Order: sequence, then structure tokens, then C-alpha cells
Amino acid sequence: MTDATYDVVALGNAIVDVLSQADDAFLETHALSKGTMTLIDPPTAEQLYGAMGPGVEVSGGSAANTVAGLASFGGKAAFIGKVRDDQLGDVFRHDIRAAGVAFDTPPANDGASTARCLILVTPDAQRTMQTFLGACIELGPEDVDEDLIKKSQVTYLEGYLWDPPRAKEAFVKASKIAGDAGRKVSLSLSDPFCVDRHRAEFVDLVNNHVDILFANEDEIMSLYEVSDFDDALQHVKNHCEIAALTRSEKGSVVIRGDEVHVLDAEPVSQIVDSTGAGDSYAAGFLYGYTHGHDLRTCGRLGGAAAAEIISHFGARPEHPLKDLLAKIVN
Amino acid sequence: MTDATYDVVALGNAIVDVLSQADDAFLETHALSKGTMTLIDPPTAEQLYGAMGPGVEVSGGSAANTVAGLASFGGKAAFIGKVRDDQLGDVFRHDIRAAGVAFDTPPANDGASTARCLILVTPDAQRTMQTFLGACIELGPEDVDEDLIKKSQVTYLEGYLWDPPRAKEAFVKASKIAGDAGRKVSLSLSDPFCVDRHRAEFVDLVNNHVDILFANEDEIMSLYEVSDFDDALQHVKNHCEIAALTRSEKGSVVIRGDEVHVLDAEPVSQIVDSTGAGDSYAAGFLYGYTHGHDLRTCGRLGGAAAAEIISHFGARPEHPLKDLLAKIVN
Repeated sequence: MTDATYDVVALGNAIVDVLSQADDAFLETHALSKGTMTLIDPPTAEQLYGAMGPGVEVSGGSAANTVAGLASFGGKAAFIGKVRDDQLGDVFRHDIRAAGVAFDTPPANDGASTARCLILVTPDAQRTMQTFLGACIELGPEDVDEDLIKKSQVTYLEGYLWDPPRAKEAFVKASKIAGDAGRKVSLSLSDPFCVDRHRAEFVDLVNNHVDILFANEDEIMSLYEVSDFDDALQHVKNHCEIAALTRSEKGSVVIRGDEVHVLDAEPVSQIVDSTGAGDSYAAGFLYGYTHGHDLRTCGRLGGAAAAEIISHFGARPEHPLKDLLAKIVN
Repeated sequence: MTDATYDVVALGNAIVDVLSQADDAFLETHALSKGTMTLIDPPTAEQLYGAMGPGVEVSGGSAANTVAGLASFGGKAAFIGKVRDDQLGDVFRHDIRAAGVAFDTPPANDGASTARCLILVTPDAQRTMQTFLGACIELGPEDVDEDLIKKSQVTYLEGYLWDPPRAKEAFVKASKIAGDAGRKVSLSLSDPFCVDRHRAEFVDLVNNHVDILFANEDEIMSLYEVSDFDDALQHVKNHCEIAALTRSEKGSVVIRGDEVHVLDAEPVSQIVDSTGAGDSYAAGFLYGYTHGHDLRTCGRLGGAAAAEIISHFGARPEHPLKDLLAKIVN
């Protein structure tokens, strides 16, 4: 795989996060379901933003966070996603490029503004996300650069991308190009409710196109409609090459056929904000995978990256993740 | 003064900060003078932003930070300043209102975009600021709501407001209304280079209009063109009713005629980012002043607020400043 220009190219929603602290009463008043991601329309976004406390704007997006994390490990990454030609679109483009990620998808010149995710962080460090998809709905197969996919070891797709209508065509096109070029396709299931919305399509995708699957306990159980993690594990091992299943404070389980690794969570000094934990786990795992490390090391790199992200406010690393390599590798 | 609706109304530049970590080499490469604020034009802003690392957007502006801090103490505050009707203008308006501050200055509908301050935070927690004033230059006397000034115990002005051309007319208009109504006028000198740019006007202002002056060591020495803090102190005590002079880790000195209080800095667990230290000192001081506390208590409240702000990234409080009251008052 050394002929690749990029370790990972990701397709995802290009989103600017608005992080704000909130208490449980606020979630109740606004009927928000803690720990999940809900899609909202512009009037609802307007209303919720008006009620929220002061915010901090920071570039986000699940797959975008993953490639920013991969670049922070020293990996080579690219991103495909849609912003508008507005101020927040400029912020997103600046931040992902400044993180060292190639990003050349042309912005939309009209239509909805750059996507925003209103994230309420409660004192228990949980995040509750309300997303206005905005310009993300403009992403389509014409934005998939065939050459870029062919030049990347792994094409990484976020499940959330199944929500905007035409993005799924981009998703399928990219998967086919990658598969035909002998590259790997990776999918993150993103969110149990996202799995609910698109279960049949996700099952088909996992069975037929996905080489490396990322999911947390709730997501994988939702995918197979089982109530026990171990049941889900028996299903997934027959359906894709590698599955990396995260379990919050219980660590992660990494499976390739009959090879199973049960990994403890990496130590974390303080948990401030769990936003981006899964995204950064995928970053560490894929950095390890594209650099020839064994599955156990890949899983530990994922866990260490997640531990860094949850120790501070925000979903992108505050300290270079490559500093973690010395602790995990060798 | 119990007939007042607001404790403080502030006039200032309405700015969104873009905070980014940088090392000393970056400052050298871009010929930036550490710890100061420089005004930059749009092409320079574009170029510097392109070279900066990933950023975090958060509402700022010196006087705006002060009134947000005052509201966090439980005080009643209002703000006058100019944004454009763009995304960052919406962010500024949302954040200051969500902080509990009344803000009704109409946005500019054309011209330059909402002001941005590119803030580079070095590992020594110093901040180096490059400001593109944008829509702030549209602030003029027509934006000064006479009734609002009359209804406020203190009208607070930031020295930085002397830079945009028409804002100074707003400044003078507000001072006169406040003075005629028997209200107090307060000024923060903002920055030694800002004092350099406008020294004669500032001296005149301090002598004739200002009741409560805020300055740090460098600023007050620059105002009187002396090289010794004690010399500056002798000058200022004859020229305005109260002067609160901040000295970083050496605490502050508060003077009213022959009444002099030398206050130690409040303890701080860690210094992460000094952005907003002076702004929040003024917040604590003015909260104390408008709530009938003695000068010593006012200075201690200022020091405690500054200690909270420098312990984290960003210039507005992360925890309610009113929690500090119990430690300082009584």
C-alpha cells in the first residue's frame, strides 16, 4: 500500500460546532435526548441557539474530526465535504487545512449556509447534538474526486452522511472506486438513531462494501437489532474484514475473523467533554492500520487518541497526537 | 444611585476573537510584537489567518468582555458596539445577550464584515493580538442611546475605541450625557501602543471627563511618558477621582486622592491564557463599585475575576463570577 499519496480520504458532513455548557434542566425544557444527534431545521436551530448560553465556535464534523486527528498523528489525510462560501465555511476550510488535511471540495455558491451543530455539554461531560445540515445537502457524486480516492489507502465514510439525500450517491460512488482500485473502505456508524434511520442500507453496505467498521455498543446492537453486545459481535465478525467496537470506559473490542482483541480504556486524567471520542478513536486506529501496526496496537492508538479528546472541551486535539505514539508503539 | 436601570453601559469594539496556539518562532516569522494589539488591514488579516493553526472562535472585544464579566457577577449591564449583519455578527450578538447583557445597537447592513481579532497564544500564556476592525468603524454618535446612558450608573469606554474614526464622537457624546446626568465615566487605556497613538486626547479625557480610570503599568507610564510606575502614580492621583492600576502577578494599586490600596494578586491554579485579564479586572472592580463596596473590596473582586479568566483559554468566564463573591465580600 506504499504507492498511496494519502493514508485516508474521508467523506463527511462539513460542520462548524457551537459548543455551550448546559444543565440537565435545559435538555428537559427543550425535549433534547442526551448523548444523541438530532437533525433540526433552520427555525428550530434559530430558536435553540437563541435559548442557549454563550458559545464557542470550533470546526467539527465526525469524519472531518477523524482526518484532523489522523493528521495530528503525522498521517496524510484528505477530506471531501460541502460548505457554503460564507464566514463559517471559511472557518471550516481554514481549520481543516491548518490541521494539515487536504481539502479542495468547491463550496456551494448559493442555498443554505454552512452546517452548524449546536452541542450542549452537560456537567457529566456528555454531549447532546442538534445539527442543521445546511450546505451539506449539496454534496453529491460530482464532488468525489476519483483520482483522490484511488490515491488513498482507506476511504472513510461517516454514517451521518446517509442523512443528506445526494451525499449517499457520493458515498456509493467512492466505495466502488475504492473497491475497484483495491483500496479499503471504512465506515463509522455514527449514532444509534442514524442506524435506525438507515438500517437496511447500512446492513447491505457492511456486508458488501465495508472492510473496516467502526461502531459503539449501541450502534452495533441497533444495526443487528439485538439487545446484547456479545450477540452483535457474533453477527459482525462474519460480515466485514475488521470491526472496531468502542465501549466508552470499558475500552474497545477489535475483531478480524477469529482474531479478537479486548482492550481496556486508556487512562484519562479528567473527562471534560466526550464530543469526538469515537471520531478520534477511528483516527488512532486508522493511523495504526495505514502504518502497518497490528490490530492490538491500532486499537490502543484509538483508545489513547480518544482519551486525549475527552480530557478537554472540543472534538479536535489540543496537543499533537503523535506524542502518543511513543507510549503505545514499541 | 439606586434609580439606575443598569450598573454599567459599555461602549466598545464588537469583535469575534479567533484564538490559536502559536510558538515564539511563528511570532518572529510574522514580525508580531508579543503581548500587544496591532491593527491590521483585510489583506494582512487574510494572510495571517492563512498561516495560523486551527482556531477557536469566541466573542471578544475589551469592553464587551468587561460587561459580560459584570453580568456574570450578577450585575446589570448593557453594550453599545457595531457588528455587520453577517454570521460572525450573529455570533457576537448571541453570545453577549446569552451572557445577560442588553445589546441593541443596529448592525451595519453593508461595508466591512464583523471585526475579528486574531489572537496567538504562546506557551508562556501571553496573547498577541492582530485586529481587523471591520464594521467597528461604522460606530458613530447616532448609535449612542441617550436614555441608556442616563439610566446607567457608569458609562465605560475602552481606549481601543479611539482607533475607529467616528467612534470617538460617540465616546465624547456618551461622556457628556453621563456627566450632565450626574453619572460616572470610566475609561480603560487598553494598550500602551493605543495610548501612544492618542496620548494628547487621552490626557485631556482623563483630566476632564474620566471619573474611574483603568490602566496597567505600561499604559499609565506611557500616558504620562515616565519610566517609573511610582511617578505615574503621582500624576494620576491628581487627575481623576479613582484610578485602578493593574500590575499582572504583582496585583493592583487602587487610588482615590490620598487613599491608596496596594493589593496582592489573587491566587491562580494555572495560567493558560492572559487574554482578557484587564477586561475582567474592570468587571470585578465595577461590580463592586456599583454595589457600594469599598475600594479595597472592588480591587479584590477585580483581581479574583482576572484570576478566573487567565486560568483557561478565552476572555470570558467559564464559571459564574458571582461564585467569587462569597470569598471576597464579608
